[in-house]
Amino acid sequence: MRVLGIDPGLTRCGVGVVDGLPGRPGKLVGYFVVRTDTGDDIAQRLLHLDRGLTDLVAEHRPDAVAVERVFAQHNVRTVMGTAQASGIALLAGARAGVPVQTYTPSEVKAAVTGSGTAGKAQVTSMVTRLLQLDAPPRPADAADALALAICHIWRGGTRAKIQAAALAAARRSPR
Amino acid sequence: MRVLGIDPGLTRCGVGVVDGLPGRPGKLVGYFVVRTDTGDDIAQRLLHLDRGLTDLVAEHRPDAVAVERVFAQHNVRTVMGTAQASGIALLAGARAGVPVQTYTPSEVKAAVTGSGTAGKAQVTSMVTRLLQLDAPPRPADAADALALAICHIWRGGTRAKIQAAALAAARRSPR
Repeated sequence: MRVLGIDPGLTRCGVGVVDGLPGRPGKLVGYFVVRTDTGDDIAQRLLHLDRGLTDLVAEHRPDAVAVERVFAQHNVRTVMGTAQASGIALLAGARAGVPVQTYTPSEVKAAVTGSGTAGKAQVTSMVTRLLQLDAPPRPADAADALALAICHIWRGGTRAKIQAAALAAARRSPR
Repeated sequence: MRVLGIDPGLTRCGVGVVDGLPGRPGKLVGYFVVRTDTGDDIAQRLLHLDRGLTDLVAEHRPDAVAVERVFAQHNVRTVMGTAQASGIALLAGARAGVPVQTYTPSEVKAAVTGSGTAGKAQVTSMVTRLLQLDAPPRPADAADALALAICHIWRGGTRAKIQAAALAAARRSPR
C-alpha cells in the first residue's frame, strides 16, 4: 500500500510518501515541503497549501492519507495556524476520496522508535534507517511526515481492518 | 456590496449574506447553517463543510467573505475543530477568488452594538433591528454570521481602502 503522510504546518507543511506492507521495511517514494509566505494573508496561505497538497495527492495516488493530530495545549502562539493547516490537509485527502487517518505525535514516535516520548533526532534517525536512505530527510517536517506514513502502514492497516470488521458486525446486528 | 459572513464551527457553521453600503442599513439576502454529523470522522466532516460553504459562495457570489477569527484561549475542548472549520471557511472564499477578511469577536460586537463586550442576545437583537427582520435569526450562529457581514460592510470597506492605498504607496516608493 502507498501512504501519504502529512505533518501539518502553515509555514512549512511536510509531506512524505512511502510504499510498504505491515512488518516489512517500507520504500521511499518521495518527500516534499509545501511552504507558504508569512507575509501573505491567511486565506491566500491556506489556498496555496490546499493547491500544493491537492497536487501531491493527485500525483501520488496514495491508498491512504495519514495526518498528525494537533493539540490545543502545545505552542499556543502557532497552534491556530497549525490547526487550520491540518484542516486543509484532512480536506485534501477527503476531497480526493482517499481514506484519511489521524495519529497523535506519540503514536507516530512509538511506531518508528518504540518510544512515545522519543525526540525529533531519534525519529529522523529511525526514518532514515527504516527507509534505507543515504542521508536524513531535511527539513524535520519531511522526516515527521515520512514517520506518519510508516506509522500508518504498520498500525493503520490493522486499525482499518478492525474498524471494517466492527462496521460489518454492526450492519449484521439488528438495531 | 454583498458580503458573506461565516461564523466557523464544526458542528454548526453559521453563514449570513447581506447587501449593503457603509453607513446605510443593510439588506438581508439569506442566512444558513451548515451542520456536520458528530458521528462522522473529522475528514468527512470537513469535506461536508467545504462543499456546503463552496456551494453557498458560488450561489451568492459575494464581493467579500468575512470570517470570525478563532482564538486558542477560548473553549480548549472544541477550539481545534473550530480552528479547522475556520481554515475551511477561509479556503472557500479564497478558492472562489473572493477577498477574505477576518474579524475578532470584539470587532464584530463593537460594529453592531457599539460595545466590544456585548453579549450574544444583544448582538442578535441589533442584527434583527439593523436588517429590519420580523424575528431574530436562529440559531445564534446565523445571527453571528450576519453580524460579521454587517461588520465587514461598515468597517471592511474602509480597511480595504486603507490597505489598497498602502499597497499603492509601497509600489510607488523605491525599495
